[in-house]
Amino acid sequence: MKKLIRVNMTEGKVQIQDLAQEYSLLGGRGLTSTIVAREVPPLCHPLEASNKLVVAPGLLAGTTCPNSGRLSIGGKSPLTGGIKESNVGGNVAIKLGKLQIAGVVLEGQAPEGKLFYLLVNKDGAQLLPTDEFKGLKNYDLAAKLQDKYGKKVGIVSIGPAGEMKFSAASVAVTSTNGTPSRHAGRGGMGAVMGSKGVKAIVVDDKEAPGVTYNDKEAFKEAAAVFRDALREHPVTKPGGGLAVYGTNVLTSILNEAGGLPTRNFTEGRFEGAQKISGETMHDLIEKRGGNPTHSGCSTCIIQCSNEYVDKDKKYVTSALEYETIWANGANCGIDDLDAIAQIDRLCDDYGLDTIETGCAVAVAMHAGVKTFGDAAGAIELIHEIGKGTPLGRILGNGTAVTGQAFGVSHVPVVKRQSLPAYDPRAVKGVGVTYATTPMGADHTAGYAVATNILKVGGFLDPLKPEGQADLSRNLQIATAGVDAAGLCVFIAFAALDIASGLEAIPKMLNAQYGLNMTLDDVMEYGKQILKTELAFNKAAGFTPLDDRLPEFFRKEPLAPHNVVFDVTDEELDKVLDF
Amino acid sequence: MKKLIRVNMTEGKVQIQDLAQEYSLLGGRGLTSTIVAREVPPLCHPLEASNKLVVAPGLLAGTTCPNSGRLSIGGKSPLTGGIKESNVGGNVAIKLGKLQIAGVVLEGQAPEGKLFYLLVNKDGAQLLPTDEFKGLKNYDLAAKLQDKYGKKVGIVSIGPAGEMKFSAASVAVTSTNGTPSRHAGRGGMGAVMGSKGVKAIVVDDKEAPGVTYNDKEAFKEAAAVFRDALREHPVTKPGGGLAVYGTNVLTSILNEAGGLPTRNFTEGRFEGAQKISGETMHDLIEKRGGNPTHSGCSTCIIQCSNEYVDKDKKYVTSALEYETIWANGANCGIDDLDAIAQIDRLCDDYGLDTIETGCAVAVAMHAGVKTFGDAAGAIELIHEIGKGTPLGRILGNGTAVTGQAFGVSHVPVVKRQSLPAYDPRAVKGVGVTYATTPMGADHTAGYAVATNILKVGGFLDPLKPEGQADLSRNLQIATAGVDAAGLCVFIAFAALDIASGLEAIPKMLNAQYGLNMTLDDVMEYGKQILKTELAFNKAAGFTPLDDRLPEFFRKEPLAPHNVVFDVTDEELDKVLDF
Repeated sequence: MKKLIRVNMTEGKVQIQDLAQEYSLLGGRGLTSTIVAREVPPLCHPLEASNKLVVAPGLLAGTTCPNSGRLSIGGKSPLTGGIKESNVGGNVAIKLGKLQIAGVVLEGQAPEGKLFYLLVNKDGAQLLPTDEFKGLKNYDLAAKLQDKYGKKVGIVSIGPAGEMKFSAASVAVTSTNGTPSRHAGRGGMGAVMGSKGVKAIVVDDKEAPGVTYNDKEAFKEAAAVFRDALREHPVTKPGGGLAVYGTNVLTSILNEAGGLPTRNFTEGRFEGAQKISGETMHDLIEKRGGNPTHSGCSTCIIQCSNEYVDKDKKYVTSALEYETIWANGANCGIDDLDAIAQIDRLCDDYGLDTIETGCAVAVAMHAGVKTFGDAAGAIELIHEIGKGTPLGRILGNGTAVTGQAFGVSHVPVVKRQSLPAYDPRAVKGVGVTYATTPMGADHTAGYAVATNILKVGGFLDPLKPEGQADLSRNLQIATAGVDAAGLCVFIAFAALDIASGLEAIPKMLNAQYGLNMTLDDVMEYGKQILKTELAFNKAAGFTPLDDRLPEFFRKEPLAPHNVVFDVTDEELDKVLDF
Repeated sequence: MKKLIRVNMTEGKVQIQDLAQEYSLLGGRGLTSTIVAREVPPLCHPLEASNKLVVAPGLLAGTTCPNSGRLSIGGKSPLTGGIKESNVGGNVAIKLGKLQIAGVVLEGQAPEGKLFYLLVNKDGAQLLPTDEFKGLKNYDLAAKLQDKYGKKVGIVSIGPAGEMKFSAASVAVTSTNGTPSRHAGRGGMGAVMGSKGVKAIVVDDKEAPGVTYNDKEAFKEAAAVFRDALREHPVTKPGGGLAVYGTNVLTSILNEAGGLPTRNFTEGRFEGAQKISGETMHDLIEKRGGNPTHSGCSTCIIQCSNEYVDKDKKYVTSALEYETIWANGANCGIDDLDAIAQIDRLCDDYGLDTIETGCAVAVAMHAGVKTFGDAAGAIELIHEIGKGTPLGRILGNGTAVTGQAFGVSHVPVVKRQSLPAYDPRAVKGVGVTYATTPMGADHTAGYAVATNILKVGGFLDPLKPEGQADLSRNLQIATAGVDAAGLCVFIAFAALDIASGLEAIPKMLNAQYGLNMTLDDVMEYGKQILKTELAFNKAAGFTPLDDRLPEFFRKEPLAPHNVVFDVTDEELDKVLDF
């Protein structure tokens, strides 16, 4: 039977419970959102003791299913004020899966100024004081913990930003290469972890019992079909777009599509796009002897990750990704990949969401704090955040606060969370997702870019409003299911186009848990998660009026297509009106 | 016929319209809220061109009615995101009344970096460039405008905080002594004025036509009865509490009642209360040769104002008021009246709400930015705001932003506006008002302190939850009517206790406008204003869940009475459920 680890930080007590029967088929986002919805008072202050931080691997974690290593981190968000599931890769989820741990719940609040870490292994879980780690950046912290517990442990941690409870603070997770370079970035989950007084969770799966399968053979069979689908689809296959160029394959594509938000969402094409594109980056990493194709997450066979090295061939950061490159590149008018890689490393080290941070910097640039294109200035600003200077506290609390501090009204946020790397005027399907997901502006919640731009799962003209609401709805439902399974969202490319790949997902779940789920059941399961999240948000004071993009997206046409966002409010209101 | 001045800042055009028939019986808050509700898109960004700033004297402005000199300033608030009417005294409302101007509406937005002022006189209104006034503090600005237009003009203006569009920026109005010392403080109306590109409105009533009366004799008669009531009631009469000690009469009273919020609402009594009390202040001002009893607002006969002088007998500030003394005194642990007077002067000069600013400073002190009681540190912080440093930008955007920036969850706000000077746990009636008024935490919206503490209008035990919802409701309705009439909220003391004084109000309105209003009609009129405001807020995304005090007021008992706020949510929801 799977276990749930509850850590009461107020009392400093660790309790290991059998996972309640009613939770037994909940994993990942399904578990985090259910626990948050049931146990956190919707109107509590997100930094108060009554909030909880839930860390949960997906249902398939620890199995041989490829790309099943995603980890969900949930709580009430200090950024949005709503429920949050922030999703991250790395090497922790499968270790928890092998340890048969369904989740870790951090509750209460350590005494002011006290900091702890949690050690999880085959023997259980232990809360340990960690005053010597106070203020450490993620890379230094990981190194120290690895010195103590071995290179192979998985680590979930926060940097100074989380300790300072910034709303843009991320939760870091170690990559397969041991660096704390995978981040649950969105929604300030790092601040919630910081408010609990927890600096890290160390997960050691040595001698872990491993996953139990109801029907191991059937599982292997389904997993093989699933693997084949991933290996076949042009986007996910070896030598495919993601493997060769990483997620940064998107820079050229979005720029071409006129949907690459540039200089704080004032244009849709960036004249420096080619200099920061996946193609340029691939050649540069290769030339320097870095690793352009890498598995950052355990069990990953897509290999969208990379290891970026500087001109002296020294490791800088891992998975320099499209969202990061866009937020701190095009969106800030910066066309210098080395500078962006440095920003990524700094964000990982201080423990910051690269999207929220880049968008905040862009708003500050819009206000004239620095000029667009000033890479050195942007790096300076990231250091301000890490040091916790007043300017850093503005930026570190995200795009909405930065807009307010500097009197800027051109602020690209939904539910106070900054928009990611696709302008909703030119990629309307993802605009619908930004507006309506309970998570605040988030591309991964319903990645309509697939069908709008990449022609996966068919094609729907990104510039036209028709059909975008339906597209977003279906993707949001499916994604909730994918997030609960602990699968990487990129498996959707193969699942959308290859029927056998899609069908393999319920087959694996059935084989592991002894179920008889159909695809419809998986969709219903996804719907239930969304309903749970929507109910929490409603109880936290959200209404359909929060499901709106900022006014300027409807008013200011975006070059080069000169389009505005014109999906009607009525259509938005129907997206998740189950 | 009354006129409405519309200033389109985008086009730089001034239009003077006859007041529409349907608006003819709207004044003050009635007019500002109606125009905002009808013309401002509820979901617009408050600093965008589509917001409007409406300045309106009350229905009785310019008449011989005592204490009829209040001015309403309305718009969508950058602090709360909801509708706002910020109410201020001074000498402008009666000038507008005499000029037969019902209101000034600032619309659109001046080109980036351009700043103007509006001159209003008997010949109409004129928009004039004012680049030379950029960045001026209110006192310097007023002096320059008075040099140009004479000592007797009324001035509505913003200081640097408004130009920088801070959410705590006030709109200054000149007092009867010509100083810009009366402030529409709450809700960041100064930021809205700044976003329009308007630095000042100069109102010159030389050769103004004056108010027309339907029945002048009847008006005089009713006004005399009203005057008598004000002169009779112990709180408002000459030599009464307000006249002798100013509003600061309340420091001792609230401290005694255990409802004086101390050190960021962590205690209900301040050990330094006596040193900052009205009694101490009165003696100090008198000893130094200042003026402890003063009419700051035209037509005022209550004289709660004062002119505070320093130890060299030099003028520092006018109307050093209870709210200011509390916010920057007890709430910051500061017991130094001279320091508080200096803070008041600085806030007036930079153009800041003293309540929001004091509460933000207290939250910063809670976070350790300065220590409680550090008067010099607090003054330093106010200068940071005025200079627009990053730290100043945090504080200048109010208490909620300050809490977020410094990771503090003990943040006393409702609808993101800071609570005023009465702890809702120990003065529960005003707690209900804080929670439910559409304005965000605001004591003037329904001053239940009167009946809870001052035993005006009967007595209702402040420590018990029973009856507080009804008390707040009735006061909120009546206050909306009082605000529309342009009467000072302090007339309520006399009106609540002296029937003839209360009845004189509809009589004056009837005599001026040729109506047949009863007291019930006045209440119905107040209700209509609230309905208008509530409808706007609903359309802006507010729900009953926004009508809640922060969780800690229900959880943390307040010394010395060890009470929590325990009016139920159900009761709160019924307060304005018309």
